Amino acid sequence: MIQKLPVEVCFSPAVYHRFHNTEANVVIVDILRATTAICTAFIHGVKSIIPVQTVDEAKQYKQNGYLVAAERDGIKCDFADFGNSPFNFTSDNVSGKTIVYSTTNGTQAIHMANGAHEIIIGSFLNIDSLVAHLHSTMRPVVIFCAGWKDRFSLEDTVFAGALVEKLLSFDNFYTICDSAIASFDLWQLAKSDVLTYIEKAAQRSRLRKNKLDDVLEYSFTPNQTSLIPYFSNQQIVVDKHCEKNHKISTPVIQNAN
Amino acid sequence: MIQKLPVEVCFSPAVYHRFHNTEANVVIVDILRATTAICTAFIHGVKSIIPVQTVDEAKQYKQNGYLVAAERDGIKCDFADFGNSPFNFTSDNVSGKTIVYSTTNGTQAIHMANGAHEIIIGSFLNIDSLVAHLHSTMRPVVIFCAGWKDRFSLEDTVFAGALVEKLLSFDNFYTICDSAIASFDLWQLAKSDVLTYIEKAAQRSRLRKNKLDDVLEYSFTPNQTSLIPYFSNQQIVVDKHCEKNHKISTPVIQNAN
Repeated sequence: MIQKLPVEVCFSPAVYHRFHNTEANVVIVDILRATTAICTAFIHGVKSIIPVQTVDEAKQYKQNGYLVAAERDGIKCDFADFGNSPFNFTSDNVSGKTIVYSTTNGTQAIHMANGAHEIIIGSFLNIDSLVAHLHSTMRPVVIFCAGWKDRFSLEDTVFAGALVEKLLSFDNFYTICDSAIASFDLWQLAKSDVLTYIEKAAQRSRLRKNKLDDVLEYSFTPNQTSLIPYFSNQQIVVDKHCEKNHKISTPVIQNAN
Repeated sequence: MIQKLPVEVCFSPAVYHRFHNTEANVVIVDILRATTAICTAFIHGVKSIIPVQTVDEAKQYKQNGYLVAAERDGIKCDFADFGNSPFNFTSDNVSGKTIVYSTTNGTQAIHMANGAHEIIIGSFLNIDSLVAHLHSTMRPVVIFCAGWKDRFSLEDTVFAGALVEKLLSFDNFYTICDSAIASFDLWQLAKSDVLTYIEKAAQRSRLRKNKLDDVLEYSFTPNQTSLIPYFSNQQIVVDKHCEKNHKISTPVIQNAN
């Protein structure tokens, strides 16, 4: 008999307490822009990322000589080395380094998920590897959308829907979670032209207003990496599985969209 | 120049603090079943409803001789006169009376909205009157979905989407709220056959399990009343406008579908 595992979607940090499950693998999602930026940093060889929740913590790390990426409300903090555009996380900036990272929404969510079985960083950039990993590890899945200041975010939700669709294509996963069903349905509306669909999102307007909207096409381009960053011992790293310290085996699914 | 008023949708009581606005009219939504039941009670001549948050409060009222409707997790509390099926709120049971009402989600949300300009009870039963009232009062609108234990609820969301669609048909309203946009989009998927769409909702399964699903068709049948119950001075009443103590004038929009 096939083991059936639940897939759930949490739309806001304010609701996460209803989803927290020490047995689950939790996928942190902040498409515009923290989790996309974190995947980018690992593509460009960052050694590890220390996500911090407050600006003060980030400042403290800066004073201690760390390279710091920090933004609030989408704008780079003045003391920081750079903000949270994925395009800041170049090889020149991050390769081989440990960086400290603080954002309005995404890095908070990572800390809230502490205690879950695995805390994994998800974005379109690594979606198929993510799916393969979630399928191979056979755990309940909670997709945790960081949103915007506790509010529902359309771009995180369409990503959640894409992930739900891929997971439900395996017999091992099921959902009876209304937010997973809604995410799936919204993804059906979005997927034929996700950039057009996302035009109406509030975060799209915020980025445009701050002239930070050059990352859109990049952020919605799937499968740019097979790396799966995860949070363990207060750092985000890749390669070592957080449970058993072995390499993650993540065959990329070839025909999954 | 037309005054433009924002329409927002709040998906969960846990997020309501981000939406609370003393200038706004807040529409409380708990389709299955509190707000549908409240509208039904007023159709059948209830004088007023005292919504209470805890089972203990409801029990106290019962000891003081009040008629009490109370449920937890969809099941009638043993001390209560009846549970929260709309079909319990018959003329025989409620006409001319003040009843006390406590539910898992809906009555909590009503109290959380305290301090908003108006706190209005919304359901498919009174949707067009609601729209006419919201349009005539010219206030920002927050549609507050009670959800299920802080979680997103599909049935509340499709109602929110129907309401958003109707409000946006007036030039006076606009939205830049991602949850309002998502509600609108989900309503587009649902509206041609809402009963079939709602089959997949978690609350649908809960009701079926408890043999409480006879209310579905009734709960999604629009415009059964022009009454608009509202919460003021700790009671839900109709007729008197909560701000100026005059009759609510609510012409039903004839062709708003």
